Amino acid sequence: MNPHLLTRMQELRDLSGLVGLASWDQETYLPRKAEALRASQLATIQGLYHERLVDPRVGDWLDAARPEGRDEVAMVRVFRHERERALKVPGALVKALAEAQSKGLSAWREARAHRDYARFEPALRALLALRREQADAWGHGGERYDALLEGFEPGMRVARLSPVLTALRQKLTPLVQAIEARAPPRRLFEGKTFDPEAQWAFTLELLDAMGFDSEAGRQDRSTHPFTGGTGPTDVRLTTRLFPELPLSSVFSTIHEGGHGLYEQGFDAAHARTPLAQAPSMGLHESQSRLWENIVGRSRGFWQHFYPRYQRRFSAQLDGVPLDDFLREVNRVERSFIRVEADEVTYNLHIVLRYELELRLLRGALDPKDLSDAWNEQTKALLGLTVSHPGEGVLQDIHWAWGEFGYFPTYALGNLYSASLWRALRAALPDVDDAVAAGDLAPVRGWLRAHVHRHGFLDDAETVVRNATGAGLTDEDFISYLQVKYAALYGI
Amino acid sequence: MNPHLLTRMQELRDLSGLVGLASWDQETYLPRKAEALRASQLATIQGLYHERLVDPRVGDWLDAARPEGRDEVAMVRVFRHERERALKVPGALVKALAEAQSKGLSAWREARAHRDYARFEPALRALLALRREQADAWGHGGERYDALLEGFEPGMRVARLSPVLTALRQKLTPLVQAIEARAPPRRLFEGKTFDPEAQWAFTLELLDAMGFDSEAGRQDRSTHPFTGGTGPTDVRLTTRLFPELPLSSVFSTIHEGGHGLYEQGFDAAHARTPLAQAPSMGLHESQSRLWENIVGRSRGFWQHFYPRYQRRFSAQLDGVPLDDFLREVNRVERSFIRVEADEVTYNLHIVLRYELELRLLRGALDPKDLSDAWNEQTKALLGLTVSHPGEGVLQDIHWAWGEFGYFPTYALGNLYSASLWRALRAALPDVDDAVAAGDLAPVRGWLRAHVHRHGFLDDAETVVRNATGAGLTDEDFISYLQVKYAALYGI
Repeated sequence: MNPHLLTRMQELRDLSGLVGLASWDQETYLPRKAEALRASQLATIQGLYHERLVDPRVGDWLDAARPEGRDEVAMVRVFRHERERALKVPGALVKALAEAQSKGLSAWREARAHRDYARFEPALRALLALRREQADAWGHGGERYDALLEGFEPGMRVARLSPVLTALRQKLTPLVQAIEARAPPRRLFEGKTFDPEAQWAFTLELLDAMGFDSEAGRQDRSTHPFTGGTGPTDVRLTTRLFPELPLSSVFSTIHEGGHGLYEQGFDAAHARTPLAQAPSMGLHESQSRLWENIVGRSRGFWQHFYPRYQRRFSAQLDGVPLDDFLREVNRVERSFIRVEADEVTYNLHIVLRYELELRLLRGALDPKDLSDAWNEQTKALLGLTVSHPGEGVLQDIHWAWGEFGYFPTYALGNLYSASLWRALRAALPDVDDAVAAGDLAPVRGWLRAHVHRHGFLDDAETVVRNATGAGLTDEDFISYLQVKYAALYGI
Repeated sequence: MNPHLLTRMQELRDLSGLVGLASWDQETYLPRKAEALRASQLATIQGLYHERLVDPRVGDWLDAARPEGRDEVAMVRVFRHERERALKVPGALVKALAEAQSKGLSAWREARAHRDYARFEPALRALLALRREQADAWGHGGERYDALLEGFEPGMRVARLSPVLTALRQKLTPLVQAIEARAPPRRLFEGKTFDPEAQWAFTLELLDAMGFDSEAGRQDRSTHPFTGGTGPTDVRLTTRLFPELPLSSVFSTIHEGGHGLYEQGFDAAHARTPLAQAPSMGLHESQSRLWENIVGRSRGFWQHFYPRYQRRFSAQLDGVPLDDFLREVNRVERSFIRVEADEVTYNLHIVLRYELELRLLRGALDPKDLSDAWNEQTKALLGLTVSHPGEGVLQDIHWAWGEFGYFPTYALGNLYSASLWRALRAALPDVDDAVAAGDLAPVRGWLRAHVHRHGFLDDAETVVRNATGAGLTDEDFISYLQVKYAALYGI
């Protein structure tokens, strides 16, 4: 391959690694008074990234690339795609978007503080107009949403996604109703506190058991848990520790640990190339969800880990049977807030947002009517009456900086995770026993071979199809939920 | 001023801030397996920095700069100077130097492990040849060392420096002899251990008392203490904690805290410009030395802090009088290792290195004879017989990557610190009482006004002259030592 091209690809990966470092630091260790300075530093390096990507010489090098073999061909394809998307957006639009995002975030914060959607609406309207313009700049076949979705879930289209999410909505509703007809689990932790340092130690034990390589990554603390870092040998996870919500750190660590294993699992031969990344946010999310929900909330997992957890918190958990603990970690209830939702109702929150986004992008819903539409949908999907926009339309940060098209990747992650799990269990018939014995290596090994090491060689659905024999489907996910909750709730 | 020029200056300050972040992270939190990745990331961003600095358009912008006022004129001068130095070194030489530095470091490590200077000598010879070539590329008036010195101490020249260091050598020797004729202080800490967490808490108390702004910086732990960060609102200090060497963390924190106050003290109006930096390494070192030695090892300082230190370590220090503690923290003894030397003998270590470097650069000393010359000078200057090169010529990392011309900045720091202190006490007659009461604000305030906030508006000696009424001199330093050690040792 053209050596200039390879060098530029590596340079850009290094720059995005430094963006990763500066962003991680911003959420973990940055002194308060350095926020403006860090914003400048990030803007500078992101601007340089863009400039070096759209550099006309890169176009010449791509034209003369001569990639050899599957890896190089994929590298050139991924890189060319990223560059073409970047080239299509005029500089003035990039600048206008950055300004609108900044205004959007501050308007959103103020609107939240006052529980007043009207204070956010003008900023959202401006962002929506710019995103529609950006979608047109990127190009689409009549569905603007597709152009945005492409940024998060390359290859996915509304025409393919909508039927799946519509069917998912229809199948989840009766399941939620069936579960809610049963007595809810008793609340195990009320009035108890869990020492943060002991929680921290347990999260490290979990990461170790998952096979997260602590010499190629680390965990720190932040307000909002995330996975970042600068490359496959430098993966940074964060968690948070609430004395009165002990499960928060447990499941946020398992969730981020799932993302982290993916990042650590890219093929070493793809280091510092565009292949050392997930092909989509949905596939990335499938890894965190598989670990957090399918493995991390399973009976087998806690057969091994619950006695260990009890030893760390004997005052709080002695006398609490495993069955009660399992029901607590698998509590299902309709609620207002997406990020606190359980794995069954969670997808209803996504469907709600997806349908609203689609109408906004199509021009079928005006921003002035968004809050009312949100509340109507919450009633229709979840049967709940929103009392103020803080528990409604203003709850998520995504729209505050004009991120439309991201939400469905969470649902895709859930669907992909169940399909991958179905294939994994078929390939490894003894995996349940291994997990129940605390041996998570088979799970990690299968995911590494069938998902992680492929990086961006193929698009997400192709990776899933190669691993499972089927593409995007809700069947595995619905079946997983039905079996699991039938057992837990005696349905 | 030309807006393109200002934007580029800001961009480069942002990039150097990110280099600072990546370097800090490398020494504090980087996972072990990410070392190679981090080296790539640093090489990439440093390469971009160079490319954006020597960019021909920057030359055009400088020609059309039209700076207005003192600040802009200084900005353009500093920036032009940096750019011209960068332009003079051919790319092939930069590359050859980077490779020779890498080889030098690994040869030095191997030579140290085997206590065998011969294993390092070929790499050192190569580095020396390249540095001589680089000095010629930069240009000089017949003294190659001047061209290297200019990189660390802009404006300083051998012709000015040598007489000062020669005189210093002559004056220090009898002082060391006089002190050593007295009984040495008794060893207070032998067989005792000091809890690292309690040490850490005390270092934070010290930083707070010094006025280090913990919302514009932070302290972490690293193997070798240093001051770094990404800008005046984001200053990163490190310290290290040895259970059996309690003074190590105390004085490394005060030392780095002195550097840190300088970095935090640049004029906010100079943020993201070339003026928000010290004009020389020597002046930077004057701030760390002033705090560490002149303030931090003074009787007044410990009148306030020793009772507090005793409370944290009552088992170890109860019954140890302040006088004994003061003599311990001001122990003077000739020794082999520079970084462990006291403030009196320290400069003899510097004179030794400076004289050898000068002979190497002039071609008057061949690298094959360097270790023998080192040992001879150690005998002559310190009266000690080197038993192996680990305590001799191989002790410092500087030459391992070809850094010649840096060592004298340590001595300059000591000399400047004493002159600044003399002027500070003349301006603030009550400062000794304030320090003895734990009030360090007057010291910080005077340094901020007379040193810190000027940044790079002037060269180091001009800053010192404006602050003290005199330029580079050893008089204040020698006088400071004589008065202090006469009192401590009853000379």
